[in-house]
Amino acid sequence: MRAADIIAAKRDSRELSAEEINWFISGIMSGHVTDDQVGAWLMAVCIRGMAPRETADLTRAMVASGKRLDLSSVGPFVADKHSTGGVGDKTTLVVAPLVAAAGVPVGKMSGRGLGFSGGTIDKLESIRGFKTQLSADEFLETVRKVGIVVAAQTSDLAPADGVLYKLRDVTATVESLPLIASSIMSKKIAAGANGVVLDVKVGKGAFMKTHEQARELAEAMRDIGRDVGLQARAVLSGMDQPLGWAVGNALEIKEAVQTLRGEGPGDLVEVALTLGSHLLHMAGKANSVDEAADVLRSVLDSGKSLSKFREFVEAQGGDSAFIDDPDLLPNAPVQREVTSSSSGYIASIDAEAIGRASVEIGAGRAVKGDSIDHSVGFVLHYKIGDRVERGGSLATIHAASSKAAEAVAPSIETAFSLTREQVQAPPSVLEIVQ
Amino acid sequence: MRAADIIAAKRDSRELSAEEINWFISGIMSGHVTDDQVGAWLMAVCIRGMAPRETADLTRAMVASGKRLDLSSVGPFVADKHSTGGVGDKTTLVVAPLVAAAGVPVGKMSGRGLGFSGGTIDKLESIRGFKTQLSADEFLETVRKVGIVVAAQTSDLAPADGVLYKLRDVTATVESLPLIASSIMSKKIAAGANGVVLDVKVGKGAFMKTHEQARELAEAMRDIGRDVGLQARAVLSGMDQPLGWAVGNALEIKEAVQTLRGEGPGDLVEVALTLGSHLLHMAGKANSVDEAADVLRSVLDSGKSLSKFREFVEAQGGDSAFIDDPDLLPNAPVQREVTSSSSGYIASIDAEAIGRASVEIGAGRAVKGDSIDHSVGFVLHYKIGDRVERGGSLATIHAASSKAAEAVAPSIETAFSLTREQVQAPPSVLEIVQ
Repeated sequence: MRAADIIAAKRDSRELSAEEINWFISGIMSGHVTDDQVGAWLMAVCIRGMAPRETADLTRAMVASGKRLDLSSVGPFVADKHSTGGVGDKTTLVVAPLVAAAGVPVGKMSGRGLGFSGGTIDKLESIRGFKTQLSADEFLETVRKVGIVVAAQTSDLAPADGVLYKLRDVTATVESLPLIASSIMSKKIAAGANGVVLDVKVGKGAFMKTHEQARELAEAMRDIGRDVGLQARAVLSGMDQPLGWAVGNALEIKEAVQTLRGEGPGDLVEVALTLGSHLLHMAGKANSVDEAADVLRSVLDSGKSLSKFREFVEAQGGDSAFIDDPDLLPNAPVQREVTSSSSGYIASIDAEAIGRASVEIGAGRAVKGDSIDHSVGFVLHYKIGDRVERGGSLATIHAASSKAAEAVAPSIETAFSLTREQVQAPPSVLEIVQ
Repeated sequence: MRAADIIAAKRDSRELSAEEINWFISGIMSGHVTDDQVGAWLMAVCIRGMAPRETADLTRAMVASGKRLDLSSVGPFVADKHSTGGVGDKTTLVVAPLVAAAGVPVGKMSGRGLGFSGGTIDKLESIRGFKTQLSADEFLETVRKVGIVVAAQTSDLAPADGVLYKLRDVTATVESLPLIASSIMSKKIAAGANGVVLDVKVGKGAFMKTHEQARELAEAMRDIGRDVGLQARAVLSGMDQPLGWAVGNALEIKEAVQTLRGEGPGDLVEVALTLGSHLLHMAGKANSVDEAADVLRSVLDSGKSLSKFREFVEAQGGDSAFIDDPDLLPNAPVQREVTSSSSGYIASIDAEAIGRASVEIGAGRAVKGDSIDHSVGFVLHYKIGDRVERGGSLATIHAASSKAAEAVAPSIETAFSLTREQVQAPPSVLEIVQ
C-alpha cells in the first residue's frame, strides 16, 4: 500500500477499506506516513466525509494504536460520560456522584479547557491536593474502591487520536463530523467503560451551533458505539446560554456542591438527571429512564450523592473541607457587579462571549499550556426569560484585580440582550439520540 | 495572518487574496507554515480549485520566492518552450535549433524524465561531454553566443515550486490544474524569457488524457502569462501514440539529428514546425504564423538548423562527432525485433505502456534519482493507420541484455492494437490556444 493512493482515494470520495485505514493510522504512528500526507488526508476527509463504516474503522484503528483499559474487575457495568464542551458545564461533577451513589461505578478520563470551553480537570484542580494524573492502576483502584474516578486523559490511550487531534487544529480540519466522532469515541472505547452517555451541546456557546449538526454528531457517535460494541446514548442539551450560574473553575466547583445539596440551578439539575438516568438505565439498574430519574432524585435528596462526592475528592487526594466551607476554595480578591443599563426580559446570553471573557480574565486558556487562575470567573444572576430592572446586577465578576474586572465588564454586559417582550426560557434538554 | 485561517478559507471554497497567498508561500519558505499545513492546503486547492486571479498570484508568489534570470542583454526577445511531457518527445532538440537558426535566441531550462515520460536533460546527457548543469552566468553567456542554451532546472529559480512539487507527489495533489499551471509558469517566468510556447500533450501517453483537460490547462497557463506579462501560446499535440519512431535517450538524439537532416518522422516535424513558427511569430520575425512556418521550412532545408545544433552541442561541451557518425552515441549491445502475430491496421499504440516499458528496460526512472542507461529503448516501425503483415517487425528493442529485451517484448507487442478495418492516422496538432 502507498499513502498517496489512500489519500487519492479519499480525495476522489472513495470509501477506504478497514485495511487501508489501519495501514494509514499505523503508518502515522510508525512515521511511514509523513505530516504533509496526514494534513492532505485530513483535508480530504474533512471535505469528502466518511461513511459510517469508515468512521467506525477509523475509531477502531485509533483505539488499536494504544492501550485499552480493562475495567472488567470493577463490575459488570462501568459508566462513562462525555461532553462536547460548553460554558459553565460542570455536569460531570454532579452526574458522577449521583450515578455512583446509585450503585453504578463511573470511570472517566477528562480533558482540560481550551478556548471558550472549560474542562473538568481544570475545575477539579481548584481543590487543594486533588490529583488528576493517575496511572492505569490508580485509576482502576480508585473506581473499584470509591465507585468514581475522574482523571486526566493519558497519552497511551488512542495515541493516534492525539496525533490527529493536534494536526487538525493547525490544518483547519477540526470541523469534520467523522473526525470529531471518531476522536471522542476512540478515547471512550480505550478508557474501557461499558456504556457512555454523550452530552452533545447545541447552541452559540457550543462547538455544534445547530440542532441538526448536533444530531448528526450524536448519531455518528452512537453508530460507532454500535459498531464496536460500546453502548452509547446522546443527550442534546442547550448551550445558547451558559449552564447554571457559575463560569470559572472554583466557582463551578462551588456550584456543583450546591447542586449536590439540592440547591442547584434548574438547567444544570435537569441535564445532570437526564444524563445520569440514561446511564442507570443502560446499567440495568432501572426498568425505564423515568424510573432511573426517580432513583437519582431520591439519591440527590438523601444527600448520598454529596457523600459520594466527598469520598471521591478524598480518594484522589483532595482536601474535602471546602465542601462544608466553600471559602476554602481559591477566592478572587476582587468582585465587581455588572449592572444592567436598561430594564427588560433577557432574550439571550451569548455563552461564547462569556466563555471568551473567561479566557481573558484568566479562567481559561487561549493556547494549550497557558496557566490559569482557578479563583476567577463570573456568576450570572439571570437566565433567558428572566426579567431584569435597570441597575440590577446581571453578573458578578470575580477577578484578580480591578483592572482585570474592568477590562471584561463590557463584554459581560453586552453578552446579555434584553427585549421588551416576554421571552420563553429555552429547554435544557433538546433530544435524546439512542 | 494564520496559516489555519488561509487553509480554512480554501477548504470553504473562498478566494484567497494576493496577500494571503504571498504570506502562505513565504511562510513555507521560512518554515512558519509546516508540512502538515502545506499538505492540507494543497488538498483543499486540489479539491476546491482556484480562480484565474488566484492562480496568477500563486505563480507570482512562487517566482518571488527565488531568483529571476535577466536575459535582456541577449536581445529584445528570448524564446522558451515547455512540454507537459510525453513518450518519444524529442521536440526541443528540433525546435530550438530551428528557431535559433532563424534568428530567435532560445534559453531553456529543462527537466529529467520521471515515470513513463522522458526528459530533455537525460537525452542530452547521452552526448559525451555535454554539460547540463550551468550557472546563471554560463546560461546567459551560452545563449548570447550561440543563440541556444538548454540547461537543467536550477533550484534557485522558483524554489517554492520545488517544495510544493515534491509535496504534491506524496500527497496525491499532482492532478490539480491551478497547481500544474502555476508550477510550469513560475519556472518559465523565473527563467527570464519573453515568450514561451507550451506543448500540451493530449492522450493516453500524456498527463492530460482528454482534449478538454488539455485545453483547460493551456488556457490557465496562457491566462497566467497574460496576467504576469509573459507571452504564452499553447499547442495541443497528440500523445495517443509515441511521437516519432524512437523512445530512449540516445535513440531520440539520433532521431533529432535525422530530423534536422530533413529525414524526420512526419508527426515530429509537424509538431516542431508548429511550435517553432509560433515562437518566430511572437518574436516578430514573421507577419503570420504561416509565414513563420515557411521560414522554418527553408531553414530546415538549408541545413542551417543542423549547423546550429552542432554549435549548441559544442558550446555546452559536447563531442559533436556523433552528428556525422551516430554510432558514436551509446549503443545497446542487444537488438531484438518484436514481430506482429497477426495482420491488420494499427488502431492504437499505447504510449503510456511503451513509456512504462522504457522505464522497465532502464531508459527512464521509476523514482527520482534512479540511474538510467542512455543506450536502451525502442524504435517503432509503424504508426496508427499503417498496415502491418503477420511476422512484420513492429519495433526494435535496444537492450542491455537478451533477458532485459525478452522481459519487455510482450509489453511492446501488446501496446500495438490491430484491427481489420482501415484506420485514419490521428492528427499531430489538435489545437492552438493563444
